[in-house]
Amino acid sequence: MARVLTPQAEDFPRWYQDVVAKAELAEPGPVRGSQVIRPAAYAIWERMVAEMDARIKAAGAENASFPLLIPESYLRREAEHVEGFSPELAVVTIGGGKQLEEPVVIRPTSETVIGELMAKWIQSYRDLPLLLNQWCNVLRWEMRTRLFLRSAEFLWQEGHTAHATEADARAYARKILHETYEDFMVNILAMPVTVGLKTVRERFAGATHTYTLEAMMRDGKALQMGTSHELGQNFARAFEIDYLSAEGKQEYCWTTSWGSSTRMIGGLIMCHGDDNGLRVPPRLAPIQVQVTVVKDADGVLAAAAKLRDALRDAGLRVGFDDKVDVPFGRRAINAELRGYPIRLEVGPRDLAAGNVVLVRRFDGSKTSIPLADAVSKVVAALDTDQQALFDEALARKEERTADVKTLSNAIEAASSGFARVPWSKVGPEGEAKANEAGVSVRCLTRADGSVPDSEDEKGLIAHLARAY
Amino acid sequence: MARVLTPQAEDFPRWYQDVVAKAELAEPGPVRGSQVIRPAAYAIWERMVAEMDARIKAAGAENASFPLLIPESYLRREAEHVEGFSPELAVVTIGGGKQLEEPVVIRPTSETVIGELMAKWIQSYRDLPLLLNQWCNVLRWEMRTRLFLRSAEFLWQEGHTAHATEADARAYARKILHETYEDFMVNILAMPVTVGLKTVRERFAGATHTYTLEAMMRDGKALQMGTSHELGQNFARAFEIDYLSAEGKQEYCWTTSWGSSTRMIGGLIMCHGDDNGLRVPPRLAPIQVQVTVVKDADGVLAAAAKLRDALRDAGLRVGFDDKVDVPFGRRAINAELRGYPIRLEVGPRDLAAGNVVLVRRFDGSKTSIPLADAVSKVVAALDTDQQALFDEALARKEERTADVKTLSNAIEAASSGFARVPWSKVGPEGEAKANEAGVSVRCLTRADGSVPDSEDEKGLIAHLARAY
Repeated sequence: MARVLTPQAEDFPRWYQDVVAKAELAEPGPVRGSQVIRPAAYAIWERMVAEMDARIKAAGAENASFPLLIPESYLRREAEHVEGFSPELAVVTIGGGKQLEEPVVIRPTSETVIGELMAKWIQSYRDLPLLLNQWCNVLRWEMRTRLFLRSAEFLWQEGHTAHATEADARAYARKILHETYEDFMVNILAMPVTVGLKTVRERFAGATHTYTLEAMMRDGKALQMGTSHELGQNFARAFEIDYLSAEGKQEYCWTTSWGSSTRMIGGLIMCHGDDNGLRVPPRLAPIQVQVTVVKDADGVLAAAAKLRDALRDAGLRVGFDDKVDVPFGRRAINAELRGYPIRLEVGPRDLAAGNVVLVRRFDGSKTSIPLADAVSKVVAALDTDQQALFDEALARKEERTADVKTLSNAIEAASSGFARVPWSKVGPEGEAKANEAGVSVRCLTRADGSVPDSEDEKGLIAHLARAY
Repeated sequence: MARVLTPQAEDFPRWYQDVVAKAELAEPGPVRGSQVIRPAAYAIWERMVAEMDARIKAAGAENASFPLLIPESYLRREAEHVEGFSPELAVVTIGGGKQLEEPVVIRPTSETVIGELMAKWIQSYRDLPLLLNQWCNVLRWEMRTRLFLRSAEFLWQEGHTAHATEADARAYARKILHETYEDFMVNILAMPVTVGLKTVRERFAGATHTYTLEAMMRDGKALQMGTSHELGQNFARAFEIDYLSAEGKQEYCWTTSWGSSTRMIGGLIMCHGDDNGLRVPPRLAPIQVQVTVVKDADGVLAAAAKLRDALRDAGLRVGFDDKVDVPFGRRAINAELRGYPIRLEVGPRDLAAGNVVLVRRFDGSKTSIPLADAVSKVVAALDTDQQALFDEALARKEERTADVKTLSNAIEAASSGFARVPWSKVGPEGEAKANEAGVSVRCLTRADGSVPDSEDEKGLIAHLARAY
């Protein structure tokens, strides 16, 4: 059989490019750094949005829509923020055929414009907390782009909240971190993530604390899957987001922001994908089970359609492939490329014996099963393989994580996976040195894995890796 | 009681502004023409998206995401298109700190960039029809803006399809027109719409046919709620969207595009809203029934929470207002402003008698009903009021539509409603004259109300009105 994809072991970056192209997931747009997300990948994004959105709403945040264009002056109000984002801005200078008096920028993120509005909306402590989220596009002019992973424009959600106290802001930033992001990544994406605090060097421009979720890709590199920030009173002071307290005093709010993007699609591909293509976890998959008509003969089509309906009635997301004029082998390869968790092959010979063939994308196993049991067998296989994908990813992550005692050992171990090393052995200076070697401190955790409040806490562990 | 809104009869535009502000639906953003869609309105938009998206998918189109930025040169490839959109473009000239070699524009609509990609994706007749849709933001630099109705940036869906034949393209443009747009507007928005063909003067820049859905607002003016276009082979030729036919010949495709936007929120407000605020049709409403705790005493809170859960279990979208420290009257006014279809007031006196009060937003009627019957009474009232809103809007539209025989009578009648007049009495010259008087031909229909294929058909009716 002709090789469809470059094997991962041969050239991982090329394997990634191949999957993205052959599974028709995305391609570059005409303007440098832009991307087109094709239906097969967009359907995955829609499922991500649905699952994340439900969690965001459960955390009490409300969706809204804020403007794409922001006055350039807004970004300058928060010193670190403007420094972080200035090099990446796209600037609109002409509107409606005329030179604009003040140039406006396409949002790279929306802390500033939302800050301006929060200042209007918040009067007293009764208006707090104010919990907002938006699903939108943002743009950061990137020189080195890579589909899903680093593109100029990308789709994301950005949450923005304002609180009366630092403790409340911290609790909420961490609630989103664990109950929205970690829960989604572990239970839906089947991706184990290391959850921790970013170092001062790595934190978001304008934040006092950045919390992060880091996943290991199949090449041992780290991918940041989402971040949640405490912004302290930095933006509150810059945009005068203040409130009248119950005690009658005017106080600045404490704000947070948190984001996750279409980058997660890239992470999903590189965490679970294998040499045959994507493997999409069953709970996420837009198509959980693909019913494939092998050949249209002896009532096969009718039996397959009936099976499809029975699976749909059981609440599953079902695809139907009756393109019998396309060679069966090619259809099987395409289904594997797209990573549908289960394929049910309905052919005349098996059907005559009352059977269909169940193919699991997880391990490629094929089993002949009675047609009458198909629904229950599929449901069971979906459950099993959701867990199996997680277990496999976790085992790989643990296997490729080294506990070391020195910075140089950590840098060495990070060439092929994650390294855990006492933060006291690294520190800001060691971090700069690691960066020179192409390695970064992905995050800091306590020894028990919990998330610290400050990098100054004693006994912290630094997680080092090369990263996307 | 203090007047919350300017009455419609006194000043309709001010009433609209008041509702948008007081119900906290939207407000202007910092950049001219931009808008912020606040949670109360965004929740309505999410419901619109859900209902529309299901219909679009049922019509076979797949969602995807195309870039925000388009090379300026793309727009120039289709002569009418660039003429139509040039005056409205926002141009990015600086990216990543550098002057761009070729300026790029923020998409005003995406025919061009999607055309470029379709040309790559379509090889043979087997790839047709190609049915795509995207939910995104677009931007058209507008000088006179109005929240929801006319803003520089707005949210919308834009469908783009390619077909092998003109007949197939026409059938699909009309399928979307009727099965997606009209069905949604009539059955979910409870808005009667006049569905017809735009005149050559009014059609989309680059289209051969533009079909439209026109609704009547409460001031008698028309609002275009959505459009579906046949683009002929105009974009296919400009972007070389061609295919190898079954007969082995290279042929140009026939393309369509169709869009509907957050403008529909403005239409909804002005079609159903009254002097107390919004009235949201039950099938659309993000909150169908609001359970209001009148006073927290004698187990009222527990009873109300139990009722809320019972309503949710019945599949309804339920809001819960237990803010008993806010005066009851103000909470009632706010619920009316937001247009929740049903309010259930749970208070100690009624509850002692085993009753709650059901308040219908449609007509303001209040009825004491047994708590035990609340779920079934709410379900029945929601059904009744969905229909009642439609019937009321239809009666108003019919009452304010005049059948006239001359252009001058049509222009006169259009000062307070719609005018139906034989198209043979108007024609392109009469249309220009009507435009000078602030009146436009909203669309053409056949005498039986069906949608014509050309403005040259005999016996057509022109529908004239002032319009938003």
